[in-house]
Amino acid sequence: MTTTNRRMVLARRPVPAVAEDCFRLEESSIPEPGEGQFLVRVHWLSIDPAMRGWIADGPNYSPPVPLGEVMRSFTVGQVTASRHPDFPEGTWVSGRQGWQEWALSDGSDIDRIADPADGPLSYNLHLWGMTGLTAYLGLTMVGQPQAGETVAVSTAAGSVGSIVGQVARILGCRTVGFTGGPAKVAQCLEEFRYDAAIDYKASPDLAADLAAAAPDGIDVYYDNTGGPISDAVMERINVGARIVVVGTMAIPSSTPPPQGPRYNRAILVKRARMQGFLVLDHFHRLQEAVDQLGQWYREGRIHVREDVGDGLESAPRQLLRLLAGENEGKALVRLVS
Amino acid sequence: MTTTNRRMVLARRPVPAVAEDCFRLEESSIPEPGEGQFLVRVHWLSIDPAMRGWIADGPNYSPPVPLGEVMRSFTVGQVTASRHPDFPEGTWVSGRQGWQEWALSDGSDIDRIADPADGPLSYNLHLWGMTGLTAYLGLTMVGQPQAGETVAVSTAAGSVGSIVGQVARILGCRTVGFTGGPAKVAQCLEEFRYDAAIDYKASPDLAADLAAAAPDGIDVYYDNTGGPISDAVMERINVGARIVVVGTMAIPSSTPPPQGPRYNRAILVKRARMQGFLVLDHFHRLQEAVDQLGQWYREGRIHVREDVGDGLESAPRQLLRLLAGENEGKALVRLVS
Repeated sequence: MTTTNRRMVLARRPVPAVAEDCFRLEESSIPEPGEGQFLVRVHWLSIDPAMRGWIADGPNYSPPVPLGEVMRSFTVGQVTASRHPDFPEGTWVSGRQGWQEWALSDGSDIDRIADPADGPLSYNLHLWGMTGLTAYLGLTMVGQPQAGETVAVSTAAGSVGSIVGQVARILGCRTVGFTGGPAKVAQCLEEFRYDAAIDYKASPDLAADLAAAAPDGIDVYYDNTGGPISDAVMERINVGARIVVVGTMAIPSSTPPPQGPRYNRAILVKRARMQGFLVLDHFHRLQEAVDQLGQWYREGRIHVREDVGDGLESAPRQLLRLLAGENEGKALVRLVS
Repeated sequence: MTTTNRRMVLARRPVPAVAEDCFRLEESSIPEPGEGQFLVRVHWLSIDPAMRGWIADGPNYSPPVPLGEVMRSFTVGQVTASRHPDFPEGTWVSGRQGWQEWALSDGSDIDRIADPADGPLSYNLHLWGMTGLTAYLGLTMVGQPQAGETVAVSTAAGSVGSIVGQVARILGCRTVGFTGGPAKVAQCLEEFRYDAAIDYKASPDLAADLAAAAPDGIDVYYDNTGGPISDAVMERINVGARIVVVGTMAIPSSTPPPQGPRYNRAILVKRARMQGFLVLDHFHRLQEAVDQLGQWYREGRIHVREDVGDGLESAPRQLLRLLAGENEGKALVRLVS
């Protein structure tokens, strides 16, 4: 049995953009748990858009990952040795063990006990994890969609967006998705059952395409991107529209912020509400989202797609593919086959 | 007695900017009330920032004033002849009679009966009118300031802003005002009792001045301007900040919208809420604002300043002065001395 742990650490900050050499693979010994600790064999890494913020040295909602430290990441793993009564050997855990194959824990970085009976263990990293919570709570709590309204989603085929679109549809809304490339458009229409999907990369006129896709205007905009897609949406919002700001993937750097159209007039005239949503503020509501999304999943009403890379080495590339919009479904890395 | 009515009509649209020749003075006969009508002698015109929107041909929250028609305006006047049982001769009315000396009404464009015992009649056009309601309700309903928080106000010495600053202070907040020129700075500090006032026209570094004036950051921003002041504020907002979008005076035209920094990242990281407030949506709460503001006024806790032009001819110039930030207090026109 191996005694070597492999860890992917932050080698440099993404100035200006994230690149593979922002990370470095290091080896160390697999640690042994002390009293009150346990050892986790990490099986799955979650790759998330927020990671760009976590490694940047700008203002953010959590302190940046220090240089030389293991990259922060949500994970699923199994306890293989334990001196902690609450986490006996064999327990599956969903937590924040980072980009490494083995991790010591005292339980403080464990978020939930994962139950293999619920379904695939990796689902704890999306539908029953932060992704599902971000989609479900951001849409329902901030977006407050009502049946009959039109909901627009940027990165509509992405891990969060695809759940948002399906939940909005379940709630009786017309759904319009923005995504990149004909394959993802087809995926939006067929798998995630959007009423309309717009290929923002191919569209010669986003405004015209949106007008056709949302003839009654936009009531809720779940915004993962900012940028040109948002600019088109802001021209089509209805009175009382709600804009859920969840991500800024189309804004590569915000120090200083890039220039774009000022939305003030639209916000005023439409009495719109534009509000930031950070899932970490609402973690205590995870079980509520797990229950509701789990029920819809078991009823066959929510479809999830995974985009899996194999081995720790693939983590930086998976992140780059995600930031470039090349992933097809929730980006993951599998460490144990 | 004169039989001539004078009316200021819209001559052309403000392309690109409002100018005096957007308006034209016309004469007509003073009309006589038919059954169910009454004649109003208009005494006071209210000059408001929203007027630029009312005469523009772009998207807005009310249809534009048609070319050749009397300019829309809030007014105070007195009934001089009546065939309407609810508005007998002598009644003082606050309504929307427009830029004209005499107006026929059937009551549908009357908002309130004005009571001279309350105080100066012109106060119905600000403290006890749309201005007071805009300030009071926009601040309390959307901004939701809590005692101990910091509230920033753009156009801090203006008719709305000066009330916002004073109400925020009464509610226990630290108040920071942006205004133009040393005279208005002094006015903010002495008359409206802001804790700090920043001369945005003279400041070599708005961000640094704001950092000094609001060391604990900004919790509520009551935004009448958009533009560079807002850009500085958005860099200083606290987690959970509320931005009340009430006006866009620093944005001369929004077709197409001008460019500025994208706020998405700040809104996301700070979980801020940016929301448009249009007083017309909340007109049914006017009496509540009148009661509360009236009480504070009678207690000597709210001070109001008026900027009065004389005669109908002065209305376009008063509007231009307001849009240029040259007014000192609520902009009005007096038609009857």
